[in-house]
Amino acid sequence: MKSKLTGLIAAPFTPMLEDGSLNLPMIETQANALSASGVQGAFICGTTGEGLSLTTEERLLVAEKWVATAPPQLRVIVHVGHNSLKESCELAAHAEHIGAHAIATMGSNFFRPANVEQLVQYCMEIAAAAPSLPFYFYHMPAMTGINFSMLDFLMTAGNRIPNLAGIKFTHENLMDYSQCVHFEEGRFNILFGRDEILLGSLAMGANGAVGSTYNYIAPVYLQLMTAFNAGDIRTARQHQLFAIEIISIMIRHGGLPAAKAIMKMIGIDCGPVRAPLQNLSAKQKEDLRQELKQAGMFSFLRQSGSTTPLAMA
Amino acid sequence: MKSKLTGLIAAPFTPMLEDGSLNLPMIETQANALSASGVQGAFICGTTGEGLSLTTEERLLVAEKWVATAPPQLRVIVHVGHNSLKESCELAAHAEHIGAHAIATMGSNFFRPANVEQLVQYCMEIAAAAPSLPFYFYHMPAMTGINFSMLDFLMTAGNRIPNLAGIKFTHENLMDYSQCVHFEEGRFNILFGRDEILLGSLAMGANGAVGSTYNYIAPVYLQLMTAFNAGDIRTARQHQLFAIEIISIMIRHGGLPAAKAIMKMIGIDCGPVRAPLQNLSAKQKEDLRQELKQAGMFSFLRQSGSTTPLAMA
Amino acid sequence: MKSKLTGLIAAPFTPMLEDGSLNLPMIETQANALSASGVQGAFICGTTGEGLSLTTEERLLVAEKWVATAPPQLRVIVHVGHNSLKESCELAAHAEHIGAHAIATMGSNFFRPANVEQLVQYCMEIAAAAPSLPFYFYHMPAMTGINFSMLDFLMTAGNRIPNLAGIKFTHENLMDYSQCVHFEEGRFNILFGRDEILLGSLAMGANGAVGSTYNYIAPVYLQLMTAFNAGDIRTARQHQLFAIEIISIMIRHGGLPAAKAIMKMIGIDCGPVRAPLQNLSAKQKEDLRQELKQAGMFSFLRQSGSTTPLAMA
Amino acid sequence: MKSKLTGLIAAPFTPMLEDGSLNLPMIETQANALSASGVQGAFICGTTGEGLSLTTEERLLVAEKWVATAPPQLRVIVHVGHNSLKESCELAAHAEHIGAHAIATMGSNFFRPANVEQLVQYCMEIAAAAPSLPFYFYHMPAMTGINFSMLDFLMTAGNRIPNLAGIKFTHENLMDYSQCVHFEEGRFNILFGRDEILLGSLAMGANGAVGSTYNYIAPVYLQLMTAFNAGDIRTARQHQLFAIEIISIMIRHGGLPAAKAIMKMIGIDCGPVRAPLQNLSAKQKEDLRQELKQAGMFSFLRQSGSTTPLAMA
Repeated sequence: MKSKLTGLIAAPFTPMLEDGSLNLPMIETQANALSASGVQGAFICGTTGEGLSLTTEERLLVAEKWVATAPPQLRVIVHVGHNSLKESCELAAHAEHIGAHAIATMGSNFFRPANVEQLVQYCMEIAAAAPSLPFYFYHMPAMTGINFSMLDFLMTAGNRIPNLAGIKFTHENLMDYSQCVHFEEGRFNILFGRDEILLGSLAMGANGAVGSTYNYIAPVYLQLMTAFNAGDIRTARQHQLFAIEIISIMIRHGGLPAAKAIMKMIGIDCGPVRAPLQNLSAKQKEDLRQELKQAGMFSFLRQSGSTTPLAMA
Repeated sequence: MKSKLTGLIAAPFTPMLEDGSLNLPMIETQANALSASGVQGAFICGTTGEGLSLTTEERLLVAEKWVATAPPQLRVIVHVGHNSLKESCELAAHAEHIGAHAIATMGSNFFRPANVEQLVQYCMEIAAAAPSLPFYFYHMPAMTGINFSMLDFLMTAGNRIPNLAGIKFTHENLMDYSQCVHFEEGRFNILFGRDEILLGSLAMGANGAVGSTYNYIAPVYLQLMTAFNAGDIRTARQHQLFAIEIISIMIRHGGLPAAKAIMKMIGIDCGPVRAPLQNLSAKQKEDLRQELKQAGMFSFLRQSGSTTPLAMA
Repeated sequence: MKSKLTGLIAAPFTPMLEDGSLNLPMIETQANALSASGVQGAFICGTTGEGLSLTTEERLLVAEKWVATAPPQLRVIVHVGHNSLKESCELAAHAEHIGAHAIATMGSNFFRPANVEQLVQYCMEIAAAAPSLPFYFYHMPAMTGINFSMLDFLMTAGNRIPNLAGIKFTHENLMDYSQCVHFEEGRFNILFGRDEILLGSLAMGANGAVGSTYNYIAPVYLQLMTAFNAGDIRTARQHQLFAIEIISIMIRHGGLPAAKAIMKMIGIDCGPVRAPLQNLSAKQKEDLRQELKQAGMFSFLRQSGSTTPLAMA
Repeated sequence: MKSKLTGLIAAPFTPMLEDGSLNLPMIETQANALSASGVQGAFICGTTGEGLSLTTEERLLVAEKWVATAPPQLRVIVHVGHNSLKESCELAAHAEHIGAHAIATMGSNFFRPANVEQLVQYCMEIAAAAPSLPFYFYHMPAMTGINFSMLDFLMTAGNRIPNLAGIKFTHENLMDYSQCVHFEEGRFNILFGRDEILLGSLAMGANGAVGSTYNYIAPVYLQLMTAFNAGDIRTARQHQLFAIEIISIMIRHGGLPAAKAIMKMIGIDCGPVRAPLQNLSAKQKEDLRQELKQAGMFSFLRQSGSTTPLAMA
């Protein structure tokens, strides 16, 4: 089994042109920018990547492009969740075939597994479709409505999914999170998925995280982790508060569509979101930019020597 | 615009072989049995049809088979809902191309429309992909988590979706239902989707319904409607109570997987369900059969002259 | 055991003065108006009566006044639900002591019964505190978050609560409702609690209902029931639609606070609601009045010979 | 204004006799044990104290006893939340009258405030009933269903509730928590309320906490806080994991009823819980004791020099 993922894993936006079609060439720019900013991996086609809004064909293309263009040190984890288990298995097999680092899946969210046992059986089939790759379960109750104890999941799946590597844990339940991190002396790789409380998770035992804001303010979190590891909680907390301020602004302006608009502001134009998500108007984008500016995001990025091709007022 | 759908529309199960692959030849049997039992239409690839558990390729095949083999008087409505709007549009265009009677879609349930306006914009794109077919919105909050006032939906969509035909209304909110039925003097075709309270909906104004139990006990509901239309509420109520008894047994045994098991009991083997749904064990199926027998379902079907090839103990 | 309650039971507003204190003398006016309008009973201190917003002392006073002043044919059912079981029992004993017709309770909604068994045990204690009175369980999941099958409740409680009379069933689940109505050949008195779909419940077997709009538009529902009983569904439906229109307006203007404002418009000033509910502004009240006028509520009341001291523009 | 509360505040169980009546004399034992164990305050009559299951009369008696017998250094905060605002105000005035340290209230949970403004208005009335006491809002969405941004609450209430001291924040949303802690340079006292993730909250900025397990394993948390303050996160984490293990066992055995059973095991018999909560059977209690023993809780308490009159196997 490959070594655990640690540090920051970004969940990239899927780049699109104004008409909503894929903008595949932008992926190389994204991959390079992530790598240059100190990010360790790319968790693609998940929530932030609007994976479920893409066609299966598009998901294959996006995955291929990421694997083909990502710098060697940037590991690509392909999310293969789909309401059709069969399509998930095809996406998984494809990810293995093209040489992705790992796969992940959320549970199907139309018909949902009714209990942990059903969830494990469901995951087993997908994991078996890419048997040589590490398999991660993507736990995100807020989006899927599937909310079982992940400790129970590990206890049930641990000896039945041979390639089970861990969990992308996107939930604020730090008790369950902590139990998973320490389960069987840290056997599994439990990546934390709530950027806004990363510090809390570090205290509880995290050493790897997947998130969407690592696409544009990764340096904040890297400094946070450095301070934390040096025992300087006070400084770590200041970084977390700064991240929270940016996240609050992003949420207030609509969440994912606002985040995608931010990408353009920092010079990596990922284009619009797809329906049913709704894009910001020009006015809304300008308001967003002003608030981020006032919060100091752009000046921070310049000072942090961020390598993204910033095109900021 | 085509005339309104009335009477019973069944939501057929998608027939599968033991290994979970499609059993396309069974569709003709299903179609003939439905038509012979007095059902007016087939709403395919929806919830009962496990539409979201199928691959897109499979959905195309299922739709083609239904359109090709259904007797002329059995109208085929193709559900095209999918988390990917683009795939929905392709399914819609295909349905039009093969000559389906109508299309329907639920809202995407991973990213969900945030308000009625977003829902209408979302539906507009799908409806426009099959412009010559009647378009139905599939309202089913219990599965999709999308729960807006359908009266608001009609008021917003009424003049913006040219081919809007109506709603498949699978919700117990009979107030909203009644308002939709009577909106603009009955302009739209509002099909009721809760078999267990069909009588209540008839009283409130329904004259068409889509449901899963119309696959196996349609005669109960036809007798119910006949009694209701004759002003004999008391008799209609007895039929509704009988249907409720069957439905209770089915729900108690697991819902959709039990319903699919019932199909085999009445001689139309639709095979297993797909994960994450879980099939009944042999023991559970036998218990189910015994309870249905005790409730009188099989003897009712025999007496009602049901034309399904019954193979019942 | 007393005979079943049938027809319309109003859930009266608790009358208050501008400063929010009780306006006890108004109760006699309310009671007489209800009785004159054809209402059979008063379900006091429930949701509409803001029972849980009152002090226990106030609830005792309100109950006493209702029992003392209601005309003999108007039966008074006292709701005794409270988060403190002990206070509920005291309210129950007091209701029996003063000669109320019956008591009812919802389940405690802070700590909630975890299953039907716990709910039944909970109800047993309250029912036992007023052993000579009929006991009703008040089922209202939307407010209490307690949502068990009422059929299960009857099966469990039927032989353990000697004075169990029935259920005030305020939920749109007409399947469960219908099963309760017909349970053991109609052994229990299942009063329906959703005015907006009364017609649906009649079709499913109701013959008694508790509601808040029976305070001000009881004649609509009486005509609805008359038409229904005469087999004239079409006319019954027109009455239901008219009621729905009034209810929609009331809901759109804030629900209970709007309903209480309507009482003043028809000449029975029940005063303001208590926090956290918020009273309508003068402007909002005027808008409400205009919409009701346009919908024809006031003219309907005049034509129906309503005996309420109408003071309408 | 009094100084902020810091360190551990226990939320004591309300002691009862086997028949469910109050066991007031036990309060002195509880108060002394808490104080001796290093706890700074007692948050009484809240969720753990079954405050809403008590009669108002009982709540007055419990508050009086706590204020009368608590050692001077143990500060008593009286929870006054009640569905009747008027009863809340009476409880608040009484708390002030008897010399409590502070009051707190949750929002009414039958009728709920519909937005932050309504919540603030609601709290204003209660805070004004005890104007000389610090006022805390008790934020516990899991029990009350009231889930507004507490940052919004502080921004709205900050200049309108003169005696607003802070929030008892019982929610896992550490982003909102952190924003509240740092709002206006730490103006308010934001006590964290999830014992199981105390360490996460410390990292995010907490320095005071209210919880139920501080009644029986306070030393674990004190050692956790000492380690954290010394910069030894690893040790702090070990203590948190131990606490989580105890909490998991307690939750698995039914939550509050199990917690109350634990009190008897450590020598402070707080008796049974009240309905609708259900007490553990003798068998269940013995299982619970065995699991706690195996987890090492009793030996930990002995080693930590806990002063509670332990009577452990």
